[in-house]
Amino acid sequence: MKYGIVAFPSKQLQDFANSYRKRYDSHYTKITPHITLKGVTEVKDSQIDSISGAVKEICNHFSPLKIHVSKINSFAPVNNAIYLKIDPTEELLDLHDALHTDPLGGKAEYKFVPHITIAQDMSSGEHDDIFGQLRMTNIDFSENINRIHLLYQLEDGSWTVYETYRLTGEI
Amino acid sequence: MKYGIVAFPSKQLQDFANSYRKRYDSHYTKITPHITLKGVTEVKDSQIDSISGAVKEICNHFSPLKIHVSKINSFAPVNNAIYLKIDPTEELLDLHDALHTDPLGGKAEYKFVPHITIAQDMSSGEHDDIFGQLRMTNIDFSENINRIHLLYQLEDGSWTVYETYRLTGEI
Repeated sequence: MKYGIVAFPSKQLQDFANSYRKRYDSHYTKITPHITLKGVTEVKDSQIDSISGAVKEICNHFSPLKIHVSKINSFAPVNNAIYLKIDPTEELLDLHDALHTDPLGGKAEYKFVPHITIAQDMSSGEHDDIFGQLRMTNIDFSENINRIHLLYQLEDGSWTVYETYRLTGEI
Repeated sequence: MKYGIVAFPSKQLQDFANSYRKRYDSHYTKITPHITLKGVTEVKDSQIDSISGAVKEICNHFSPLKIHVSKINSFAPVNNAIYLKIDPTEELLDLHDALHTDPLGGKAEYKFVPHITIAQDMSSGEHDDIFGQLRMTNIDFSENINRIHLLYQLEDGSWTVYETYRLTGEI
């Protein structure tokens, strides 16, 4: 099965992201707005429980994270995806790195750019048009992330939550 | 905000349910296949944390549940919804009842009929046609439910997971 690890932001921030996603994001109906902490990773179905245990162990070492969403940005020309930029903090980068150590699989494929996608799978023309309209939008959300989720993908491409982990910072 | 409590069945059973839902269920894109344990309940946003604490407390008293999906049934004529019938067990009914005690809100509005909806919001003609095709389908899934989820609804009608609770049976 394919699994991933995400944080869901507050209802307010998810509703804001969805106001764009419903028009511009091809994955809109497959998952609610999220910050990807570990991208799609293939494992045997039988491994999901041990992966869950490893994530739980990691989360015990992390306290709730402060996030700040500061602007709308784009991955173009690498990728025609537009996103809400989340300021990278040491805590967020450390959590991302911890979720890319054994037994969860090695280093991340790409540099971690914390974000919430609001538009993807557009032609270059559409992208440039929409990003041109959105890039100067004033964005300023600050909130705490105190839980993350392990999800797996169904055959139709939608994502279902397997487990939630509190960032307890107990250890 | 509107919250609800559900159990997500296994990937295999969710994929099976989605093979019908993608054609017949108006809520297909809003939530993955689920067993509703507590239907839509309105609370103040600030209450969600205390509700989560109460659900956690309840789950500590319940061990993992065995479920058996035995047939396709319909709520007609009350409601043109078709569902995978889950055999009611004492454990499932007890968990449902526990999730309808204070501080989570009083008695359930309807008798609890455990199920996974696969079709809804059809005309009576459509319903009768589809149910006529499906009612004799051989269904036989047995599995364990060892976690349940607290969800809340976004403004677009989709559901996002707030927290997962293990049925630990520790107490």
